[in-house]
Amino acid sequence: MRLGIDIGGTKTAAVAIGADGELSDQVRMPTGFGAEAVVATAIRTVERMTALAGVGASAFTSIGIGIPGAVDNATGRVEHAVNLGLEGLDLGPRLADRLGVEVRIENDVKAAALGAHHLLGVADGIRVSSMAYLNLGTGLAAGVVLDGRLLRGGHGVAGEIGHIPVDPAGVRCGCGQRGCLETLASGLAIARTWPTASEHPARELFAAAEAGDARAQAVREEFLTGVASAVRLLALTVDVDTVVIGGGLAALGEPLLVGTRRILNRWADESAFIASIGLAARVQVIPFGFPAAAVGAALVGEHQWLKSSS
Amino acid sequence: MRLGIDIGGTKTAAVAIGADGELSDQVRMPTGFGAEAVVATAIRTVERMTALAGVGASAFTSIGIGIPGAVDNATGRVEHAVNLGLEGLDLGPRLADRLGVEVRIENDVKAAALGAHHLLGVADGIRVSSMAYLNLGTGLAAGVVLDGRLLRGGHGVAGEIGHIPVDPAGVRCGCGQRGCLETLASGLAIARTWPTASEHPARELFAAAEAGDARAQAVREEFLTGVASAVRLLALTVDVDTVVIGGGLAALGEPLLVGTRRILNRWADESAFIASIGLAARVQVIPFGFPAAAVGAALVGEHQWLKSSS
Repeated sequence: MRLGIDIGGTKTAAVAIGADGELSDQVRMPTGFGAEAVVATAIRTVERMTALAGVGASAFTSIGIGIPGAVDNATGRVEHAVNLGLEGLDLGPRLADRLGVEVRIENDVKAAALGAHHLLGVADGIRVSSMAYLNLGTGLAAGVVLDGRLLRGGHGVAGEIGHIPVDPAGVRCGCGQRGCLETLASGLAIARTWPTASEHPARELFAAAEAGDARAQAVREEFLTGVASAVRLLALTVDVDTVVIGGGLAALGEPLLVGTRRILNRWADESAFIASIGLAARVQVIPFGFPAAAVGAALVGEHQWLKSSS
Repeated sequence: MRLGIDIGGTKTAAVAIGADGELSDQVRMPTGFGAEAVVATAIRTVERMTALAGVGASAFTSIGIGIPGAVDNATGRVEHAVNLGLEGLDLGPRLADRLGVEVRIENDVKAAALGAHHLLGVADGIRVSSMAYLNLGTGLAAGVVLDGRLLRGGHGVAGEIGHIPVDPAGVRCGCGQRGCLETLASGLAIARTWPTASEHPARELFAAAEAGDARAQAVREEFLTGVASAVRLLALTVDVDTVVIGGGLAALGEPLLVGTRRILNRWADESAFIASIGLAARVQVIPFGFPAAAVGAALVGEHQWLKSSS
């Protein structure tokens, strides 16, 4: 049995995966803030999972963790996980000391890419060789799986497409550039373009647009154009078979998929080249509630990755 | 000895590579137009090379060809090589029949990526594991080598970054979209923005800008911004160690490199994120006259590639 833990900004989710690839126990709890609290959250999660399974931590053939920030997966160190109050933490070694087993650490979006890749394989009954996972959360980032292996990159920025500018006249991004993809299609983008007290601004936006509010329709169109732009960019760079949209905003579900495909189809009408690569058919939205990052984290230990640095 | 042939729109270049990786004989001749003439050009090139080496075609351990257009490298078929007057041609089988040895076919930009990768390895004395080759010719396209292997893609568009739009207010591209990278940084872009009777419009443009012509400086800036945008896009998607600029416009040499780095450094001044990934230090321009596509074609036969499709 493999254990995967997704340490998010507010919640931590864990899942156990059996030898057959099926998900079994899942738990969810609030994430503590700051280094010590994050370590304590991870330990508590493992304890809950071992209690559920009626085994000790050593019964897990591998334990993996997905966490935001810059992760050195060789050393298990995490840096710049701002939302978790972490500047630097040797998370892997700290947990290994406490649990007595090796714990592998991966960036959460990359872990989720592995989880989505696993899901596609289970769903299609085959091992899908190439896919990109497009994470629409607070920010925008992607994880790429090529030839069945995760692309890690040499400088920690593989898949950081959220900070590729696509409009010189766009708004200033938090990164200092202008018109980045993240300024169009992310939780931050919706917070800026559709300010609301709602707990689910994106759902409110889509509902208002659906109800005929012209401003909501324009805001939604800009958002969807950003999502479609990210899909096109991934297809024309790494030429993956499938782009799976995940992250918090993927909870929008069908309207997100339908809207993204509508934009991609409009571009195909305007460009024979775009039409020839069949983008709309290559997009999916991850099923609601599928714990992609936790599943991917469980697989990290056994996964081969793709070096893009010497 | 391996033989590589680069069939270009106007010229065909061939090179032989010894077991030690060193280049030996090179020949160059005009390319014929249309299917029969292209086959005849390839045959004549092989004959010239065998005559130079004093051996028969079978003495080459592998023969590879780089050619524009959509190449099915499994079957050796080429399609849509418009500049060569080819709609569809079973180039690999045709040549194998005539020469009595297997001939491998690869898209010319992908072949050049392999050639540039080989050159980096020779230059640095190590096997560089990841790099992108940014081809600035009539159009703009890239070839990506990850973990030492060429990224081929599942739908023939891996590296087709020239058709990623980066400006919604940009000019219409030949592909039907607007503001594509190719509309900023390519021979086509310079033909549009700097119309001239000169045989070397880009060199004339750069010379005029250097001499203080304000309009030339503005046109050059737009061109260089496009080049720098392509470098940033490659770094933030596949996170390669090095981007090597090649293609006809790479003959601009040092001024192209200096100008591109100037833009990248300006972006780094404006964004701590961009500064952190050290883009300027990761760009190179391929040495003048290095026959990247022919060298890569020679290596195609022995090269492992990276599947991004099932």
